[in-house]
Amino acid sequence: MPRWAPNAALRLERAAIELFAEKGFAGATVPEIAQRAGLTTRTFFRHFADKRDVLFLRERELPAVVAELLATAPPGLDPLALAMHGLESAATGDLERWKDDIRARRAIVESEPQLRERERLKSAVLTDAIRDGLRAGGVDADDAALTAAVATALFDAALERWLGGDDGLPLVEVLARLRARLGRLASVPVAGGGAEDEGVLR
Amino acid sequence: MPRWAPNAALRLERAAIELFAEKGFAGATVPEIAQRAGLTTRTFFRHFADKRDVLFLRERELPAVVAELLATAPPGLDPLALAMHGLESAATGDLERWKDDIRARRAIVESEPQLRERERLKSAVLTDAIRDGLRAGGVDADDAALTAAVATALFDAALERWLGGDDGLPLVEVLARLRARLGRLASVPVAGGGAEDEGVLR
Repeated sequence: MPRWAPNAALRLERAAIELFAEKGFAGATVPEIAQRAGLTTRTFFRHFADKRDVLFLRERELPAVVAELLATAPPGLDPLALAMHGLESAATGDLERWKDDIRARRAIVESEPQLRERERLKSAVLTDAIRDGLRAGGVDADDAALTAAVATALFDAALERWLGGDDGLPLVEVLARLRARLGRLASVPVAGGGAEDEGVLR
Repeated sequence: MPRWAPNAALRLERAAIELFAEKGFAGATVPEIAQRAGLTTRTFFRHFADKRDVLFLRERELPAVVAELLATAPPGLDPLALAMHGLESAATGDLERWKDDIRARRAIVESEPQLRERERLKSAVLTDAIRDGLRAGGVDADDAALTAAVATALFDAALERWLGGDDGLPLVEVLARLRARLGRLASVPVAGGGAEDEGVLR
């Protein structure tokens, strides 16, 4: 993923995460972040709107990364399998290597209500990216929206479990297990059900 | 749901939705909203932080409404059925009656990027409320988080389909059909799978 972000932005992100971890989010200033990165405050503001924004650099890459992962998936997968294939590819690659950085960032995000709120929007960006990628691959609008929302829910739950767990399971494995669990949860018949989906969704 | 909101707040909400529909979100002011509701600007700010906040009055009720719906559900339901039971109860009651108001509000929210962003947080509040309600009912943390996220994804997709569709299907029926569709999507085996969830989630 770093290939999408300019080097200066990546250095500022790293400096910011270090400083926030040391001094708290409120305790670190933009000039300090820039200085730690060996760059100027002006350069900081060329890449980021504010101190919060530096924690969401990777979000900018999500649409392009997701579009590429979905476009290069093997043919013949149903929508949820396609979305999961993309997420599993991401999970086995960069994300696994970056676990310590991701955990450090997560701890900072959890420390501030405004950052936790902002993090919710990151999930929404992922949902939209998956939905758009599925639609680009020919999935109909309703299925794409539902599948994207469910895939994001699985991914968010897997990330949390992966970062919070102490069993050292790889993210891709956590993701596969939650996916299997969802299969069991979702296969339970609806109480009083018998509804068919043909008609409503086309 | 109105029982949870003070009457003045409900009058201000109605006046705001009417004015935003007539003049656009940017075109209507807080004094105009207060005047249309027959109240003072001061009263407006006793209930709402700003003009945007008035569109999210119902969000404040979500945790209490969801907790009550989950606590009064029949015993013996699995987590997803329990969450869906609560959402179906909401769907068959007030929401169906309020369809025109909900659609008018939705059109305003869709008209402004800042409102669309704020709306995402409303979904997050619903997810948290369902998760907390499930946990209060004894569901374990991982299942509660996953189920809540999936139930919210279904509910959001159903709302969008219900408001956007022109076939007059009741929300509860749209919800049941999407739930059935998820059952089929999610039951497809994971490519290269065979993962078991025992161990990781307990």
